[in-house]
Amino acid sequence: MPGARLQGDGFDMKKVEAIIRHHKLEDVKGALNEMGVHGMTVSEVQGYGRQKGHTENYRGAEYSVDFVPKHKIEIICSDGNLQLVIDTILKSAQTGQIGDGKLFIYDVKQAIRIRTGEMGEDAV
Amino acid sequence: MPGARLQGDGFDMKKVEAIIRHHKLEDVKGALNEMGVHGMTVSEVQGYGRQKGHTENYRGAEYSVDFVPKHKIEIICSDGNLQLVIDTILKSAQTGQIGDGKLFIYDVKQAIRIRTGEMGEDAV
Amino acid sequence: MPGARLQGDGFDMKKVEAIIRHHKLEDVKGALNEMGVHGMTVSEVQGYGRQKGHTENYRGAEYSVDFVPKHKIEIICSDGNLQLVIDTILKSAQTGQIGDGKLFIYDVKQAIRIRTGEMGEDAV
Ligand SMILES: Nc1ncnc2c1ncn2[C@@H]1O[C@H](COP(=O)(O)OP(=O)(O)OP(=O)(O)O)[C@@H](O)[C@H]1O
Ligand SMILES: Nc1ncnc2c1ncn2[C@@H]1O[C@H](COP(=O)(O)OP(=O)(O)OP(=O)(O)O)[C@@H](O)[C@H]1O
Ligand SMILES: Nc1ncnc2c1ncn2[C@@H]1O[C@H](COP(=O)(O)OP(=O)(O)OP(=O)(O)O)[C@@H](O)[C@H]1O
Ligand SMILES: [Mg+2]
Ligand SMILES: [Mg+2]
Ligand SMILES: [Mg+2]
Repeated sequence: MPGARLQGDGFDMKKVEAIIRHHKLEDVKGALNEMGVHGMTVSEVQGYGRQKGHTENYRGAEYSVDFVPKHKIEIICSDGNLQLVIDTILKSAQTGQIGDGKLFIYDVKQAIRIRTGEMGEDAV
Repeated sequence: MPGARLQGDGFDMKKVEAIIRHHKLEDVKGALNEMGVHGMTVSEVQGYGRQKGHTENYRGAEYSVDFVPKHKIEIICSDGNLQLVIDTILKSAQTGQIGDGKLFIYDVKQAIRIRTGEMGEDAV
Repeated sequence: MPGARLQGDGFDMKKVEAIIRHHKLEDVKGALNEMGVHGMTVSEVQGYGRQKGHTENYRGAEYSVDFVPKHKIEIICSDGNLQLVIDTILKSAQTGQIGDGKLFIYDVKQAIRIRTGEMGEDAV
């Protein structure tokens, strides 16, 4: 097995986590792909923002319940790609209506490709 | 599209991630709502803590399998609201029995409202 | 209710997040368990890495779609256990074929056991 010894915090990587509308996943994926960003993890979530209790559209129907189904996408990227990833998601996920979602950014200490043990920017 | 240029780390926001019992979600949501905390993301997870292998209750039945279904809730908040969010979750999620769950706190570098491009505390 | 007042950042804990093959979950869980690592959260995700568009195997069939189902596992551990957790996951999750997955590491500011209010290393 390739080893993967932890060194210092010598790289700078971030996680971009975006909660987006269900029907925007393909647009966001396509836009990221066009920009050369490969690597993404998607999960099903439910949530609400500031309009809790108010209605929000989902698949043409008005949701009066407070939890609305969304997709969470997670992209780990180098700091050098961060602004591109953010701009691409904002552009492709926006509709202008309430409920377009949120984008959160976190520090990543380390990334490792399990198959090879490659670390840091080589692994994302 | 509204831009969202990254500035320094001028804000202080945290992610509160709590793994709670399935049947406690409504209580936790209600308690947070009463405290004026709007904005939450929920997902379905499975897990185990220290009692792996021992039994834990889920919907009245004893689980002898080691993975128990839980809800993960995630709340991004300003540092000013952090203690309130933590106290509210602890209070509303506790039953006193093993398996009440865990709460983890992380730094958030940035938050952006996708519809408007608003950043930082304005976005949570 | 036991309180849980936030102190400084006096501990050092990390989150290890691994995206692994579906059929490797039992191996990874067993290996971690043998090493005395108790406590894990698992969720269902979909994703792709560098080979987007190319085929990857899933349950014996070739996937030509770009999203492949994976398990995300999350383990919060003390810095003292970090290298052990990483090595154990790498070893038990590898097959040597493309699509073995990724491992990401994050700082954790605080951990709290909801039932007791215990904090820090006592809570993981
Ligand atoms: N503070 C928060 N913490 C965690 N998740 C959040 C938070 N705010 C929003 N979310 C997640 O983002 C999703 C979309 O939120 P939403 O777009 O409605 O945000 P908003 O602030 O209400 O903005 P808008 O005014 O454009 O509706 C929610 O369903 C929820 O999953
Ligand atoms: N170290 C950990 N890393 C990641 N997830 C964890 C960890 N410990 C617990 N969890 C998650 O939290 C859930 C609830 O854990 P649980 O409440 O049983 O913790 P515990 O430490 O065993 O406390 P208790 O003694 O009260 O049962 C688990 O099902 C799992 O999803
Ligand atoms: N940059 C990334 N950001 C977020 N998730 C990622 C990233 N790269 C990979 N993933 C997740 O990890 C899973 C497995 O990725 P995969 O093992 O194919 O990585 P890879 O870099 O293509 O390595 P390999 O060459 O071994 O296939 C993906 O399905 C996706 O969920
Ligand atoms: Mg909203
Ligand atoms: Mg337990
Ligand atoms: Mg791959």
